Amino acid sequence: MDLGFIGLGIMGRPMAGHLQAAGHRVYLNTRSGVPREMTGKSGIACKTAREVAQKAEIIFTMVPDTPDVEKVLFADDGAASGLSRGKIVVDMSTISPLATKDFARRIEELGCFYLDSPVSGGEVGAKAGTLTLMVGGREEIFERVRPLLQLMGKTITLIGGNGDGQTAKAANQIIVALNIEAVAEALLFASKAGADPARVRQALLGGFAQSRILEVHGERMLKRTFAPGFRIELHAKDLAIVLAGARALNIPLPHTAHCQELFNASFAAGEGGLDDSALVKVLERLASHEIKIAD
Amino acid sequence: MDLGFIGLGIMGRPMAGHLQAAGHRVYLNTRSGVPREMTGKSGIACKTAREVAQKAEIIFTMVPDTPDVEKVLFADDGAASGLSRGKIVVDMSTISPLATKDFARRIEELGCFYLDSPVSGGEVGAKAGTLTLMVGGREEIFERVRPLLQLMGKTITLIGGNGDGQTAKAANQIIVALNIEAVAEALLFASKAGADPARVRQALLGGFAQSRILEVHGERMLKRTFAPGFRIELHAKDLAIVLAGARALNIPLPHTAHCQELFNASFAAGEGGLDDSALVKVLERLASHEIKIAD
Repeated sequence: MDLGFIGLGIMGRPMAGHLQAAGHRVYLNTRSGVPREMTGKSGIACKTAREVAQKAEIIFTMVPDTPDVEKVLFADDGAASGLSRGKIVVDMSTISPLATKDFARRIEELGCFYLDSPVSGGEVGAKAGTLTLMVGGREEIFERVRPLLQLMGKTITLIGGNGDGQTAKAANQIIVALNIEAVAEALLFASKAGADPARVRQALLGGFAQSRILEVHGERMLKRTFAPGFRIELHAKDLAIVLAGARALNIPLPHTAHCQELFNASFAAGEGGLDDSALVKVLERLASHEIKIAD
Repeated sequence: MDLGFIGLGIMGRPMAGHLQAAGHRVYLNTRSGVPREMTGKSGIACKTAREVAQKAEIIFTMVPDTPDVEKVLFADDGAASGLSRGKIVVDMSTISPLATKDFARRIEELGCFYLDSPVSGGEVGAKAGTLTLMVGGREEIFERVRPLLQLMGKTITLIGGNGDGQTAKAANQIIVALNIEAVAEALLFASKAGADPARVRQALLGGFAQSRILEVHGERMLKRTFAPGFRIELHAKDLAIVLAGARALNIPLPHTAHCQELFNASFAAGEGGLDDSALVKVLERLASHEIKIAD
């Protein structure tokens, strides 16, 4: 099939690669120029997003934030200007659910279709093709695109209509951030109270405190491995989307809002590029105590 | 073996029952009088905690809070006054880690031994004998008592020295409370943004947001089943222990402290007797929106 992929960053590059590896012809465009090694028989570099939309049947976008999606879709040389009836835009970026509903409406007004399909699982999941995909849009369009999504993701759920995929991703980012803070407070308390935080974590994994975050991010806190993973600056971007949405919808999210303030403290310490498990370092500075595993 | 069990409430009763069912003679004492059906060949009612300690080799305590443990151990007719050298006290209540270290010291000064072994898993786990036990104390004493603990619990971990079991339990209660708030904020956001919170939860269970709390308490929030489970008033008691300890140890726990404030709002609404997943109702009132599953 003739596909398009716009946005070839850390995530987009391996994702587009899976489409190419499956034998599809993929028209490629990215802000900084398409890497030469992606082009050839199955990859064709395009100068503009419009050109991608002119040549491809289904166009995937994977860019950093809401304004970036707006630009690649609706700028003068954006994808919308190259679309013809029946084509499908699949935005896999993590952006505002509210803006997404607007983007979808504008694409459908062109006689085309729109899916929002943000992903979870990071660079590792993108490379392995094991991302979790949360999709919003029409069921029949979802079914048409699903075989392609399965090349990039493992757990793929149609949540509901347009925007609902982004809403699910927002919910995901809330829980992940707050579970990280939960694990940080718990392990810091344990460590400063004189217990071995590694043994505490191990015991807690067997009960109601169990979570993927206690498993993965808890271990990072203990081993002091704060190379990303998923960077604080990206998580803070996602919480900004959540909090703007919450403001617009009149939803008070007290812990999410406070978590964003803690991320601000991470930035103040120059730690925005670290993994989001490094949120624990903010708390450690407040407590003048660093978590330590017993020897 | 001749055992003792002090505190026959919702938790203590089935726990003592498992010891009796395994063929041990259990000397029983509880504030409100030993239930007749627990007495007979394997259960002997005692008028005081002292009498229990005089007759049993290993004495278990399971009472509500720190002052209750202090009373059953160190009041005039308390267990300490009935102990003789080599006997073992195993406190399975959830109480202060710092007070526990003091209690253990005072018991060991009598030539006896002390384990703190708070439990997680609630009434269901107590009845099924599948509790999670977090133990603090000497390893050789732990090994002697372990076969008895295995009659009551499934996952049993020696965390470290005296108090460390309670510290692990405190860490557990921090994470459980904050994960409940995380799920509440996420599902409320999803619901008010117009997505089906049930589908959002289902999708999130496959990724990094997965937790036992999202599974169990998330489902309770969706199904509006707020019968305990584990009551808010007990969880608030546990957080009070955590926050007093945190204060003594100079550990700021901003989310835990705020969660306790939200529990205060639960009490204000007369909801202290509900399951702790009902914390979501506080947030729902703030947002003037109740979570609803799509039909």
